[in-house]
Amino acid sequence: MSASSTTPIRFAVLGCGRIGTMHAEMLSRRVQGAAVSVVFDVVDAAAAAVADEFGCGVAASLHDAVTAGDVDAVAICTSTDTHVDAMVAAAQAGKDIFCEKPISLSIAEVDRGLAAVEAAGVKLQIGFNRRYDPSHKAVADAVQHGAVGDVHLVNIISRDPGPPPIEYIKVSGGMFNDMTIHDFDMARYVTGSEVVEVYAKGAVRVDPAIGEAGDIDTAVVLLTHANGVLTTIDNSRRAAYGYDQRVEAFGSNGKAASDNTHQFNSVLATEQGYLRPPLENFFLERYARSYLDQWAAFMSYVRDGGPSPATGADGRAPLVIGTAALRSMQENRPVQIAEVDKEIS
Amino acid sequence: MSASSTTPIRFAVLGCGRIGTMHAEMLSRRVQGAAVSVVFDVVDAAAAAVADEFGCGVAASLHDAVTAGDVDAVAICTSTDTHVDAMVAAAQAGKDIFCEKPISLSIAEVDRGLAAVEAAGVKLQIGFNRRYDPSHKAVADAVQHGAVGDVHLVNIISRDPGPPPIEYIKVSGGMFNDMTIHDFDMARYVTGSEVVEVYAKGAVRVDPAIGEAGDIDTAVVLLTHANGVLTTIDNSRRAAYGYDQRVEAFGSNGKAASDNTHQFNSVLATEQGYLRPPLENFFLERYARSYLDQWAAFMSYVRDGGPSPATGADGRAPLVIGTAALRSMQENRPVQIAEVDKEIS
Amino acid sequence: MSASSTTPIRFAVLGCGRIGTMHAEMLSRRVQGAAVSVVFDVVDAAAAAVADEFGCGVAASLHDAVTAGDVDAVAICTSTDTHVDAMVAAAQAGKDIFCEKPISLSIAEVDRGLAAVEAAGVKLQIGFNRRYDPSHKAVADAVQHGAVGDVHLVNIISRDPGPPPIEYIKVSGGMFNDMTIHDFDMARYVTGSEVVEVYAKGAVRVDPAIGEAGDIDTAVVLLTHANGVLTTIDNSRRAAYGYDQRVEAFGSNGKAASDNTHQFNSVLATEQGYLRPPLENFFLERYARSYLDQWAAFMSYVRDGGPSPATGADGRAPLVIGTAALRSMQENRPVQIAEVDKEIS
Amino acid sequence: MSASSTTPIRFAVLGCGRIGTMHAEMLSRRVQGAAVSVVFDVVDAAAAAVADEFGCGVAASLHDAVTAGDVDAVAICTSTDTHVDAMVAAAQAGKDIFCEKPISLSIAEVDRGLAAVEAAGVKLQIGFNRRYDPSHKAVADAVQHGAVGDVHLVNIISRDPGPPPIEYIKVSGGMFNDMTIHDFDMARYVTGSEVVEVYAKGAVRVDPAIGEAGDIDTAVVLLTHANGVLTTIDNSRRAAYGYDQRVEAFGSNGKAASDNTHQFNSVLATEQGYLRPPLENFFLERYARSYLDQWAAFMSYVRDGGPSPATGADGRAPLVIGTAALRSMQENRPVQIAEVDKEIS
Repeated sequence: MSASSTTPIRFAVLGCGRIGTMHAEMLSRRVQGAAVSVVFDVVDAAAAAVADEFGCGVAASLHDAVTAGDVDAVAICTSTDTHVDAMVAAAQAGKDIFCEKPISLSIAEVDRGLAAVEAAGVKLQIGFNRRYDPSHKAVADAVQHGAVGDVHLVNIISRDPGPPPIEYIKVSGGMFNDMTIHDFDMARYVTGSEVVEVYAKGAVRVDPAIGEAGDIDTAVVLLTHANGVLTTIDNSRRAAYGYDQRVEAFGSNGKAASDNTHQFNSVLATEQGYLRPPLENFFLERYARSYLDQWAAFMSYVRDGGPSPATGADGRAPLVIGTAALRSMQENRPVQIAEVDKEIS
Repeated sequence: MSASSTTPIRFAVLGCGRIGTMHAEMLSRRVQGAAVSVVFDVVDAAAAAVADEFGCGVAASLHDAVTAGDVDAVAICTSTDTHVDAMVAAAQAGKDIFCEKPISLSIAEVDRGLAAVEAAGVKLQIGFNRRYDPSHKAVADAVQHGAVGDVHLVNIISRDPGPPPIEYIKVSGGMFNDMTIHDFDMARYVTGSEVVEVYAKGAVRVDPAIGEAGDIDTAVVLLTHANGVLTTIDNSRRAAYGYDQRVEAFGSNGKAASDNTHQFNSVLATEQGYLRPPLENFFLERYARSYLDQWAAFMSYVRDGGPSPATGADGRAPLVIGTAALRSMQENRPVQIAEVDKEIS
Repeated sequence: MSASSTTPIRFAVLGCGRIGTMHAEMLSRRVQGAAVSVVFDVVDAAAAAVADEFGCGVAASLHDAVTAGDVDAVAICTSTDTHVDAMVAAAQAGKDIFCEKPISLSIAEVDRGLAAVEAAGVKLQIGFNRRYDPSHKAVADAVQHGAVGDVHLVNIISRDPGPPPIEYIKVSGGMFNDMTIHDFDMARYVTGSEVVEVYAKGAVRVDPAIGEAGDIDTAVVLLTHANGVLTTIDNSRRAAYGYDQRVEAFGSNGKAASDNTHQFNSVLATEQGYLRPPLENFFLERYARSYLDQWAAFMSYVRDGGPSPATGADGRAPLVIGTAALRSMQENRPVQIAEVDKEIS
Repeated sequence: MSASSTTPIRFAVLGCGRIGTMHAEMLSRRVQGAAVSVVFDVVDAAAAAVADEFGCGVAASLHDAVTAGDVDAVAICTSTDTHVDAMVAAAQAGKDIFCEKPISLSIAEVDRGLAAVEAAGVKLQIGFNRRYDPSHKAVADAVQHGAVGDVHLVNIISRDPGPPPIEYIKVSGGMFNDMTIHDFDMARYVTGSEVVEVYAKGAVRVDPAIGEAGDIDTAVVLLTHANGVLTTIDNSRRAAYGYDQRVEAFGSNGKAASDNTHQFNSVLATEQGYLRPPLENFFLERYARSYLDQWAAFMSYVRDGGPSPATGADGRAPLVIGTAALRSMQENRPVQIAEVDKEIS
């Protein structure tokens, strides 16, 4: 066995909230060849709890964490508005970077972060975990391997089991940037083609308080890709029957589609019919394996090189699509991606 | 048993092509309380063959057929461009009318036909057979009975197993009027709400010859209903795996969805996975029962009164939506139904 | 087109009860190349009603029916105890024979009938319609074509939606001869191998009145085939969720399995879970297509020759197995088919 | 929060093979309120590796492990022939016990172990993990809560993806004690009723080497329960399509059934049909959650008392059934459990 496969990759985990704790646990215990050297959180107690649980150090500052000598790579799991500063610091320290989505709600900030990464020549992978969900991945693979033939249509259904707190909604950047961003990425991932036009409709149907906070909770988006594929996205903040996540790619040879996981696989059949349990409740259950496979992809990318499984450009594009979607909804017209891109640059 | 249930309703079947022959067979043999007195077709041999098979008379003219003394009701199954003349003739003869869809490709003509029906006070049912498909009907019933709660989103997938001949495409009135018309009706039927806005994208992906004939073979349409529901429609002229017909209504309490029928219900499980057969091939198989249940609805409507299961207005509305969809696609903008309606009247 | 494919095969239908009427309708109207010349029933009015409906003659006696000059083939749909007399009469008249199952409850009588058929050299097909059910047939085909590999195990689940009237139970010949007979045939059909040993357990769980009538309503039977395959059969007279009919063949390459048809293909998903409708209620719905395909097989057999799709031996074997099953249950021991066969001959 | 819920239960894990390592990992990291104080294995290096990975001590002997002051409970994961010695030692040390199945291949030894547990008054739970599989548990719960009504029939299908090494087969105690034991337990668990009679058929169909080793690889077993339920068990050592684990309980109100988990939830639909991936490969994947829920049940049992989720009697009964099954197969006759029980005592 070569040294490269036996020397662990040592991580600094930035942010010890729900998602940062999950990543720290995986990197400490379940990702082959990974180790956590140090964690950091602006809330000292949060960092201390994670360090205690997983037996790693606590950094006094984000800067200390990313520059530590026993750190090879940085996992950015802080709040969205601090991602780019962390990315720049890690890049300047020469560390490879995993960054949770979205990189930033500001495309200008995104560009600042990506420029720092490019200047430093470090590796970067954005946390679009759904790409590693085995069911969705099977759809993308079927497209890529030609099993679907020329792709004509893609349908993405993405419905949460319940809305987040209103306080979160207010700082979320809006449904398109917070929730649909995953679907924008899925559309690009499955088709392998850039989006060139967006038409979006939104509504407040789940909770009036979401509307009062200036956001929507129900949406349909129609994307036109550079290769002519038409993608529909269907979103809701609340599906009574669980977390509904489906992707279907239709083309000249047929279709590939992912389906949901029920809470368990049983059925009760009576005079009323056949009853199966609701769907798995939310992303930590449904996407558990995708998070692990995402880390396996990162490890392989850092060790063996090759293209990033989810590049900085992959992190940027959905934010541009989200901007176009918001404008489309507000002005009730299809919006070209080029129109938004021109204004940014 | 009362006289009304024992005296048969006697039909004139106009048009002895594929669909007319199917209706003549059902009315002769399988619809309780129905009988066919006479058939008519502009091709004498076609009428004679049907009359011979099912033991009924042949009319010398359409006029003779609709005015015959032993005819209570008329089934209009001729080519689309002759529907309205037949409808006017039948109405003036005081006969109840079943008319295949579309009533006409010209909305002015539709209005002429509906005016004659109204003036005569006869009954009219339009042939939107999919309303009687038990699977789709279960979706509409779940909505109507409140099981879905407030409806937020509807998804309709409607993909044919293969395109019709180019000669048919040329006179079809275009994909929206020929194929999507069923889905426009389904959207109104399932939601119980009028469409107020249409946004449509179309493409030629299946066969360039369809594009050369001035039509499309692939489409996505987004409908906004008066009650705020958003409906997506996804169409293709060719699904390699069979006739794909699905409707899903999503709302505050969950969802109701119809699924396809496979050619048969078996599975082969090997190292490669679990293989089920493709879908039933086309509408005569998939919708066989819906045609019978459509006739049962007509019989009950004629005998017992009440609202038509599919009114003249139900026949007209999808044509207006289709006109709006075509304009939306051509001008790449959302089109209000009111805009089209204003121009017509 | 050759004469053989254009000249119809003309039938006498014997017995105008539920199943005879169904066959008369199919042969009159839906089986390509078939016609009904005459029908007979011991109840004159029953024969007259069928003759009136389908436009054929009424025979004054069974003998007249089978010897009529315009009759090529005979469909025996009378009560079970008269099958063999009808079979002998038809054979002696030189007519090809379709005979409903069971041929007789007496194996000696069966042998008398089959001897007459053999002596006359006429064709004979027994009405094991489930062989033509497309789902079960796909299982048998997968076995025959090698897709399952060497077959090791077969599971047959066969549960009725509700028991027949007690009066019927009393003359039915018992559950094994009346209901399980189909499964004994299925086991032989799917495996292509004779049964050599039977072990059976029965119980009265559905209705004590069935027990009082000397029968059972719940059973499990284990068959050992000559080629070593083990088949389990699971029977109940009452499944609350509908007519449950499943066959699974497991072998070295995997498995082939047939599944049920639900009343329609829709689902309602709420907080309680995903609810599909119950199964199709009974054999006239579930096996509708199998009855038609059975006639297609008969037509082809009579016209083109080759082996019978369900021979006299196929009709006899399940009765021997049923006899062995009854003895096994009564004596609680495995019973060899050879033991029963020896006693008969 | 009370002390009882905050003070961890400290374990000695005996045996550091595949299953012991899995339990040590769960108890160290994933079972709320559990901790591992010490591990033991007859192979020093195996114990050292586990101790190093999970940060616990290594005991010099099994006796040291079970008597250690910082040990509250013992997990017995050693080879089957040493289970009872470990159980007796742990009981005499006053420690609560989790013991992997089977307790022993010798019923006399089982009785020695259970006597020691009873004398010491310690708690005992046998490792029938499938009871905690959410899908199978839903079947048992549906029975227990009356949703199935009076149970009439139970079908258990249990097929491994591939046979173990021949060396393992030779010391396994035979298929009934090694593999079917889980299904015997499932039958008792789902029905809540003791088995009173067994009829078993076995065959060598997967690999002749298994037959040469004196074992079988294919079996069908028919159990009769005290309450009249009939259970069929269908076993194979090799299912080409993956690990096939299904349980169905049928009764007066309908049925409850568990189904398998596919490797992922996607489908590829082409002209050939609809293809889903094979099943999850084996028990560590399929039953991952059941192992965790088994520990949750143990923790609750030790902390809160109540009946054991899987008692010593539950561990003993399947071994008696297995003995009866082997005799039934060898002598080709149904064997009463009472017959075997009488010989043992």
